[in-house]
Amino acid sequence: MPNLDFWYSIGSPYSYLSVMRLADVADASGVSFTWRPFNVRHVVLAAGVAQRSPEKTSYMWRDIERRSQRYGLTPVLPAPYPLGGLVLANQVAMVGVEEGWVEEYTRVTFRRWFDEGQAAGEEPNLSDSLEEIGKDPEAVLQKAQSARFEKALRDQTEEAMALGVFGAPTFAFGEELFWGDDRLDDAVLWAKGEWG
Amino acid sequence: MPNLDFWYSIGSPYSYLSVMRLADVADASGVSFTWRPFNVRHVVLAAGVAQRSPEKTSYMWRDIERRSQRYGLTPVLPAPYPLGGLVLANQVAMVGVEEGWVEEYTRVTFRRWFDEGQAAGEEPNLSDSLEEIGKDPEAVLQKAQSARFEKALRDQTEEAMALGVFGAPTFAFGEELFWGDDRLDDAVLWAKGEWG
Repeated sequence: MPNLDFWYSIGSPYSYLSVMRLADVADASGVSFTWRPFNVRHVVLAAGVAQRSPEKTSYMWRDIERRSQRYGLTPVLPAPYPLGGLVLANQVAMVGVEEGWVEEYTRVTFRRWFDEGQAAGEEPNLSDSLEEIGKDPEAVLQKAQSARFEKALRDQTEEAMALGVFGAPTFAFGEELFWGDDRLDDAVLWAKGEWG
Repeated sequence: MPNLDFWYSIGSPYSYLSVMRLADVADASGVSFTWRPFNVRHVVLAAGVAQRSPEKTSYMWRDIERRSQRYGLTPVLPAPYPLGGLVLANQVAMVGVEEGWVEEYTRVTFRRWFDEGQAAGEEPNLSDSLEEIGKDPEAVLQKAQSARFEKALRDQTEEAMALGVFGAPTFAFGEELFWGDDRLDDAVLWAKGEWG
């Protein structure tokens, strides 16, 4: 089965669209995905790129709104943004990578963030999301804030940058990058060798 | 017949993909397009947005390359960029808007720019493109550099900004914007009332 790396960030609004439909896309396409959280804010700041202009931000929310409609999603927009807890949210995701529940946690925390207006990476989203997937919030949060998982997220972010990832979500097949939720279909075609 | 405004810039690499396939898309979809050149460089500078990072620029050329392959286009990449003659190229296009040959000129000048490596807005691209579509280069270039057409391009650029356009190409159906060649299919669906 062909596999794509799914580079995303809890904190990236456009990642919401991919996070919420990726399981369905995997089922329908026969392509599997490796969920790879990273710190997109670090990548953007390191590139010295300026903030989004107000026009671009307005466009982003409207674009997410109309595409949510198409995917059958019902977010309340705009969602809280930017996220103060971005780093912690993604360190928790890195614990999930190690323990095998990153996909469930990510989906649940995005749903609370977008559909219920609870900022990811903060309470009550953190603990409620972990409880919902059957994890002990206190134990996970302690682990997520350890030096080992601070480093795990930094290393994963460095790996994203080394690959040329500059935004989220990005789908990667080897070194071939597809940036944006709207390129997910292209990435799947590429992975299946059906491009062109 | 539903109509979309096609906001583009001679000088915008991603506009190449749309320029070269728009006539086919119009035929296949039954949607018509109003070709609206503007000065994307002015819009980007006015927004105070930084330059593209090297990673983003590399991605852009690779993305254009693989999508060209899919569309049956054969550019030599990277094409000359950025264009020193961006303003003049688009002022010529504004003459074409008034005289009814903007679409032909745009297609021919992009083909020379991308397929033959001749920078648009400079010689020999300017005169050869105009001759190819049966226009007198000297007369058109004189007209294009007049105060009237300097103003025409500025006004059209102001109109793009007032609409919220922040990049090229952008497809607009009323106030509904779709940014990027990769959103052309979405814009067509929207214009036909087949969204969602």
